[in-house]
Formats: sequence, structure tokens, C-alpha cells
Amino acid sequence: MGKAVPSPERASVTEGEPLQLESLIRAIPDFPLPGILFRDITPLLKDKAGFRAAVDCFVDRFEKEKLDIIVGIEARGYMLGAPLAYALGTGFVPVRKPGKLPASKYTEEYALEYGTNTLEIHDDAVGHGQRVLVVDDLLATGGTAAATGRLLERLGADVMGYAFLIELSFLNGRKALEGKPVTSFVVY
Amino acid sequence: MGKAVPSPERASVTEGEPLQLESLIRAIPDFPLPGILFRDITPLLKDKAGFRAAVDCFVDRFEKEKLDIIVGIEARGYMLGAPLAYALGTGFVPVRKPGKLPASKYTEEYALEYGTNTLEIHDDAVGHGQRVLVVDDLLATGGTAAATGRLLERLGADVMGYAFLIELSFLNGRKALEGKPVTSFVVY
Repeated sequence: MGKAVPSPERASVTEGEPLQLESLIRAIPDFPLPGILFRDITPLLKDKAGFRAAVDCFVDRFEKEKLDIIVGIEARGYMLGAPLAYALGTGFVPVRKPGKLPASKYTEEYALEYGTNTLEIHDDAVGHGQRVLVVDDLLATGGTAAATGRLLERLGADVMGYAFLIELSFLNGRKALEGKPVTSFVVY
Repeated sequence: MGKAVPSPERASVTEGEPLQLESLIRAIPDFPLPGILFRDITPLLKDKAGFRAAVDCFVDRFEKEKLDIIVGIEARGYMLGAPLAYALGTGFVPVRKPGKLPASKYTEEYALEYGTNTLEIHDDAVGHGQRVLVVDDLLATGGTAAATGRLLERLGADVMGYAFLIELSFLNGRKALEGKPVTSFVVY
């Protein structure tokens, strides 16, 4: 049923004439708070070649991993995680901010780069032993991704790793995710 | 560059042995408010065959339309719109709730099925004359989609239509979108 999974033999963004993803990510000073330099991926997403190249970075890296589920973190994680799930032929599970999920769910608190918040997942979202990958646009302190990992472990999922388009390496987010593989494609 | 666009000759969900999308959409009474029957697509998204079939409904319908940009409405519209953009080889533009977009933007108010809210779009998100399709999971009263259409028309985009996985036909949302093609795949 459905469309073919995109063929794996195509060139990746790192071969041939690479499209520079960095050139399509813009820096916005003092957003959302003074002193924060926000990495805005909307110029990348709206560019058809850039968007495809960004998703294909993930596809190339994970197509051999026999994943069952891509988990996207609200909301930019959906913009990359859902196309990745489509391309790999997996299911897609959203981790959401409070009050959005209608059925029985688990909740975890986390610390943001700026502030605190809560994430939720349906308690039937992932089956025991399913191989899942957590996807978000950006790794900062790692608090959001770590909370997502805790939610998934409570469901009995096998967390195969975490993947981000962008990593702010000076915030040491990998430390919060120790013990699992962490992948990123653009590092500041 | 990048992966092949999934080939258009594959069977659609309506041919052969159709997967019943409806069977993977669950009804949750009294969410988010008493009296509202919420149509929850998370069981569909997490099912790899269901997710692929859902996205492919859109792909089959729109692959001939020469679209430039898929516009997704926060947040479930991203889960369907971003994979559609990937499959069609278009760019993806998120319309967002207030305070999420970091750069110069336009704002529109809208009435929800339950309450009111505001949507925003970056003022450089879409170019003049670009062919755009608006995607969301569900058409209720049409207020959200109509506000998105107004944002896009302020940017000079050519709004080719609106597409939804689910339509609640008893709410007459098509009336709010009169003058543009409206597509839906599961109608209650």
C-alpha cells in the first residue's frame, strides 16, 4: 500500500555539491528573551531544496536502524520528525505540551534553556520494546529531549537515540542524554 | 540532491484493499470541553501503514498541482503538512500561535470551534504569486483555515486550496472558505 519509501541510493547532502544548511538558518538576537540568539529554521523549511536536504540528513543517517516510531517534540520537532517518519515508513508519535492530548497520558517536567515546562505522551503511544528515535529541531540544554526519553522509558520503549538538526554545543545538552546516541547536523 | 520524490504510480489508499483511515481515528467525548467529541488522530499517526496512507491521500490528490509551498497550521497541521511537502518536493511554512515566530510577521485573529485565538506568519514566508496549499488535520468551523488564507493573501500568495484529513461537515466549515477548493478525506 501507499507510496514507495524514497530510494536509499540517492546522493546525500554531504556528497556532490552540498547544500549548506547553515546558509538557510538565520540568527535572531534577543528572542524569545534578551541575550538569547535564536536559530530560526523557517528560511530552511520554506526552501524546497533546503527542506528536502534537511530531512534527508536524518533519512540517510537512520534508514538502516529498523526504527518503529519517530517521536517528535512540539512543535518544530513535528516539522522534521513527521517527514522523517514518512520517508522511513515508521509511525509518528507527538510528545505534546500540557492540555493538548485527549486520552490517558503520562507527564514529565523539564527545564528549558529559558524557563520550565511540562511534556505529555499518550500512555498507549508506543508499545513495549518498540524502537524509537526522538527528533527535535535543536539541542540546547537537553532538558526537553531528556524528559521525552523518560516518558518513552515509562512506556517500555527502546530509545535508540536522539537526533537534532541543530546543536548548541556550548550548552552541553549531550550530557543530559548520556547513555544514548546523539546525532546533530549543524553545530554552533 | 536529496531523495527521490516517492513515485506517483503506486496504488492509492482508495484502490486495492483500502486501509480504512476511519478505523484508526478515535472519538474522545468531552475534550477539550464538555459536549465536544474530539477526533483523535494519534492512533492513525503511530500506525506506520495508517500514517503513510493518510499522507498519501494528500500526495495523490495534489501531486499534479505544481505547488510551491505547503502551509501547515499549528500543531497537528505540521504532522501531515510537513510530510506532504517532503513527498511533493515543496517548501514548508508553519503558521503559528502567538509569540512563537522570531522575525517580522503578520497576525490574524480567528474564532475557534471553542474560543478565539490568533495566528501568525513571517512576512517573508511566502513570495508573491507562489502556489500554496493550506493543510490541517481537521476542518471544523473553518475559522483557523480562513485566517490562514487571509495571512497568505496579505503576502500575495496564490492560495490553491485547503486540505484536511477530517471534515466535520455539520459545522459548515466550507462556507468560511468559499471561493477556494476544499478537500477532505474522512467526513463526519
